[in-house]
Amino acid sequence: MENRSLQPVADAEGGRGDDDLLPIRRLEISDNSKGFVELLAQLSPCPPLSDADFSARFADLAALGDDHVICVIEDPRSGRIIATGSVFIERKFLRGCAKVGHIEDVVVDTAVRCRHLGQRVVQYLVEHAKAAGCYKVILDCEPDRRAFYEKCGFTEKSIQMALYF
Amino acid sequence: MENRSLQPVADAEGGRGDDDLLPIRRLEISDNSKGFVELLAQLSPCPPLSDADFSARFADLAALGDDHVICVIEDPRSGRIIATGSVFIERKFLRGCAKVGHIEDVVVDTAVRCRHLGQRVVQYLVEHAKAAGCYKVILDCEPDRRAFYEKCGFTEKSIQMALYF
Repeated sequence: MENRSLQPVADAEGGRGDDDLLPIRRLEISDNSKGFVELLAQLSPCPPLSDADFSARFADLAALGDDHVICVIEDPRSGRIIATGSVFIERKFLRGCAKVGHIEDVVVDTAVRCRHLGQRVVQYLVEHAKAAGCYKVILDCEPDRRAFYEKCGFTEKSIQMALYF
Repeated sequence: MENRSLQPVADAEGGRGDDDLLPIRRLEISDNSKGFVELLAQLSPCPPLSDADFSARFADLAALGDDHVICVIEDPRSGRIIATGSVFIERKFLRGCAKVGHIEDVVVDTAVRCRHLGQRVVQYLVEHAKAAGCYKVILDCEPDRRAFYEKCGFTEKSIQMALYF
């Protein structure tokens, strides 16, 4: 597994020799059978979702159009989702009706970390927020992820407070 | 001004003798003429908005229904908005299609602080998130606001990272 995590993906069909060539795409309904929810479970508790529940939530989010994007990277060998992240665009009144991108739920399969897939996911989400006209993009993370997000161009700004019901 | 900030509001018409009785309501289109944007300017740069721009953004947010709420407190004496805050509901796939409330842009007019209006705004937004079925509500703030949000029931959870375009 250690070797696998350091080696580029060799895709016999497509001839890909580097993870940089693994395409990032938006989430699709069929990804419920490709381990998307299992991947999220590496971040937070995630019971399996029925196709009906998955489709309903998918439709909720699709209705938001480009204001909510979930991206994924699929391993072409296994057909499994190995990295994901989301960004939603918040519309404000301040700063002349500005927009802010909120990045959430970035996770890379533990089996394929150290391949910069996380950085590619974050870059994709940042670029989406920028293209959408946001003046900034923000996220919350544990302090031990600070260095990773600094590599992605972020700086520590403030603190996150939470209230659990 | 110092006295005013410590005295309860005396509303000659309604007989209100305490800020607790000042109603909190949702933002209305007519609030563009009641100093809503000027109030936000105490938080972040806010050029005045034309009625057309205000209405367009208002419509964007109204389309989200209960998934985006901006509340305000209006001073019945001056007819000005003196406190506001917003919450939007993010729908996720994790935790069985859970929802998370994100509180943003809480501001109380500097002239009327120390009257617990900020706590009432946050309480309103928290209750909305809870009623909407969120499992938690989160927000980002400067460290010097930690004590205020702890009074509102929040605890420090993580750090916020930002990337400005």
